[in-house]
Amino acid sequence: MFRLLRKCLTTTRRFCTDTSSFMVREPKICTVVQSLNENPPTEDVVVRGWISSIRKHKNVTFLHLQDGTTTDDLQIVALDDLPIPNLTYGSSVEAKGRLVRSPYDKQEVELSVEEVKVLGSCDPEAYPFKSKKMHDIEYRRQFQHLRPRNKFDGTVLRLRHEASRDLRSYLTDEGFYEVHTPIMTTNDCEGAGYVFKAVAHENKEFFDKPSFLTVSAQFHLEALSHAIPKVFTFGPILRADHSKTRHHLSEFYMLEIEMAFCDDLHEVTDLVDALLSETVDNLIDKHEKDLKYLWKHSEVEDLMKTVDAIAKESYQGMTYTEAVEILQKHRKQFDYVPKWGEDFGKEHERFLVSHCNQCPVFVEEYPIALKPFYMKRNVDGKTVKNVDLLYPHVGEVCGGSVREDNIDNLKRNMEESGIKNIEAFEWYLDLRRFGSVPHCGLGIGFDRFLQALTGIKNIKDIVPFPRSYDNSITM
Amino acid sequence: MFRLLRKCLTTTRRFCTDTSSFMVREPKICTVVQSLNENPPTEDVVVRGWISSIRKHKNVTFLHLQDGTTTDDLQIVALDDLPIPNLTYGSSVEAKGRLVRSPYDKQEVELSVEEVKVLGSCDPEAYPFKSKKMHDIEYRRQFQHLRPRNKFDGTVLRLRHEASRDLRSYLTDEGFYEVHTPIMTTNDCEGAGYVFKAVAHENKEFFDKPSFLTVSAQFHLEALSHAIPKVFTFGPILRADHSKTRHHLSEFYMLEIEMAFCDDLHEVTDLVDALLSETVDNLIDKHEKDLKYLWKHSEVEDLMKTVDAIAKESYQGMTYTEAVEILQKHRKQFDYVPKWGEDFGKEHERFLVSHCNQCPVFVEEYPIALKPFYMKRNVDGKTVKNVDLLYPHVGEVCGGSVREDNIDNLKRNMEESGIKNIEAFEWYLDLRRFGSVPHCGLGIGFDRFLQALTGIKNIKDIVPFPRSYDNSITM
Repeated sequence: MFRLLRKCLTTTRRFCTDTSSFMVREPKICTVVQSLNENPPTEDVVVRGWISSIRKHKNVTFLHLQDGTTTDDLQIVALDDLPIPNLTYGSSVEAKGRLVRSPYDKQEVELSVEEVKVLGSCDPEAYPFKSKKMHDIEYRRQFQHLRPRNKFDGTVLRLRHEASRDLRSYLTDEGFYEVHTPIMTTNDCEGAGYVFKAVAHENKEFFDKPSFLTVSAQFHLEALSHAIPKVFTFGPILRADHSKTRHHLSEFYMLEIEMAFCDDLHEVTDLVDALLSETVDNLIDKHEKDLKYLWKHSEVEDLMKTVDAIAKESYQGMTYTEAVEILQKHRKQFDYVPKWGEDFGKEHERFLVSHCNQCPVFVEEYPIALKPFYMKRNVDGKTVKNVDLLYPHVGEVCGGSVREDNIDNLKRNMEESGIKNIEAFEWYLDLRRFGSVPHCGLGIGFDRFLQALTGIKNIKDIVPFPRSYDNSITM
Repeated sequence: MFRLLRKCLTTTRRFCTDTSSFMVREPKICTVVQSLNENPPTEDVVVRGWISSIRKHKNVTFLHLQDGTTTDDLQIVALDDLPIPNLTYGSSVEAKGRLVRSPYDKQEVELSVEEVKVLGSCDPEAYPFKSKKMHDIEYRRQFQHLRPRNKFDGTVLRLRHEASRDLRSYLTDEGFYEVHTPIMTTNDCEGAGYVFKAVAHENKEFFDKPSFLTVSAQFHLEALSHAIPKVFTFGPILRADHSKTRHHLSEFYMLEIEMAFCDDLHEVTDLVDALLSETVDNLIDKHEKDLKYLWKHSEVEDLMKTVDAIAKESYQGMTYTEAVEILQKHRKQFDYVPKWGEDFGKEHERFLVSHCNQCPVFVEEYPIALKPFYMKRNVDGKTVKNVDLLYPHVGEVCGGSVREDNIDNLKRNMEESGIKNIEAFEWYLDLRRFGSVPHCGLGIGFDRFLQALTGIKNIKDIVPFPRSYDNSITM
């Protein structure tokens, strides 16, 4: 009770619009998006943010203010007798005034200002960004600590937040539990060399065994799904990948899901279809302005159509074998045409998607030799129960499979894959030894998913602080 | 549209309770918690899970089924003419039958079963857990891959999910954006030796600079808060900490928050108070059964009172100086009494909480020398604008401060702290160089927060796969 009282008092101190009349009426603190949505715009407010442009006229100064909460600026109108020392592009300010209907076309609301206080000035010569200039995305990438202040990069950040939230909330509504799987594991992926190792001071081991950074949470999720049947984890994955393409990062975000009591690959595809299409539908519905702003600045054409297809069209499906047949039928279009048993390249993935009218495509049942040991085999003795989801522009965004739940088959698969340190997998075999269950799982590359939605060509521009083999690590 | 149709069809295939009469009526698939909540319990269902006990009587067999969705079991009643080969404790099963009102006191609903299919058997001799035995928490800790199947450990997992969700949703409702800060950074904490380093194959560097695993997302959050003023991140933190206490992990979860345009420490304490107390209030409200189950198995006394205080009482506040005075007044109770300028030990933290009637206590304004360079100093020239939150039983769960936003003061602080590689912080100084803003931030130790709520003494039992200096890393 006392806590509530205290909370009331402090709330009163800061947001006093509904206090009784004997108290001093203090202005409400608003973000830019809140200001622009004030209707009718009659209130005394304080708005804080960074100056994105200054226009001085004879008797009046127009300032534009942004604070990362919307792609729009708040126009601030200051009469010339208002002294504002140190005001430059990039400065942070606190503006106090009255929100009024704007007489100008570009905005409905503007701030008729009484006082502008510069909180932090900004030397326009030294500041890497210039007023009224949309700097190249490659140029901005050099200033990871400052680029989120650019409207484009700020919008990407907001969309990351909204998309994460929608994915989580869909899964939770469907009865999934979010779990926390470890960053440091004993899994070295058979010394394949593309894992990071965690060492202590002077490159010494810290634990009793070498510890590696997670390349997938799958095995830990499988353990948890044998206790709570529907689980997911959403977090960073680290791979010491030497790829220097615009689709690879050394640190990226993955949503991984595991479902026990499920041995039907179509439960995986149905879930992925519903999860992704509803998330995208939601984003279009609630954040159309943000998406359109990003699309406007993308080199990818017809993004609205693509994203609409992701949200609303039926996801297509074909087997790996059918995909190979399609590619071979159109062999003239490729430098190299994959034979059955070989993996697809980016050009083949792109072709398969365009073959399906730029709709997402599930490609199912790959050859055994192309996929990891934990996938359940089909009765044909040639293929596994797996699925890859291909998206327009970006290619693979998701992979899933039915897991082998029989301990003898699993051991055989491990041997055939050439795994030597089977003793390191004893705990994993235990899951099949004690109350084993048929189960499926999948992983969605969150950054690539956002690339597809935004038309951002380089994955380094989707994450705020990218880490990749060809990129300097500066902070 | 076609997608929706396909979704309908597949949904129909699996959950047919509301299909039209000409279709075959297939039983609904239920979790244990859904079964127990079916009211009236008349439906044909399929329930899947693991066998937690078997009681054979003359003409009837009673099975108990659990699936991690509740602390309760579903009682399955099988007439003896029902053959169930390979059924043992720990087996996974699929049971088909009809939910009916139970004639027994212990439960309202039970499953009158027509068919029980064992999906994965379990050798009761080899399985580390025995039927009807609550194994010691230390014993269970040895089997990280299997222990979530124990009701206690499964309940902790569910609470982690619910608490994470509530914290996120409170902050989002308050206008905060969740951002993703990197695991790999250049910050080596001045070679203090308690950071992990990420290396590639054969202990080689991977990037152009040495990369370390994050010990705090604060600096990256500060950069983002200078673009979107209210941000948070919730994820793993890695510290090569040699502590072997029951309060330390090498990998733990932290919720970190940064607020721009805020220079009042009480905005931090108000936010923390509201965020944590409402989260706890929610958990008590919605997950009382789970909490009570964990409290029943805790050695900590009077947990309900403690947790109620966290949810409903006013959080107390005192300055560091007042805290020292209180401790000195009760000097007889301690082996060592801290003088002004020295840090508190666990016994002192515990005393301060009990001094405040076992309510959470904010201790504010510590001596400059005890705290990091980025904290803003008070005008007294002796203390900083910081706050630590102490909780009953666990001590410090949260720390926050006003950040130094003036570049000259920040440089002075860095020099006085003995930081040599100031060039590595140039990007951080840029934040104060270009449009600097007064800002505050804080970090909440999520695992310790849950320890306080559940009465779990060892932090290794709060996370599913603990990593710590004294603990073998097995998976």
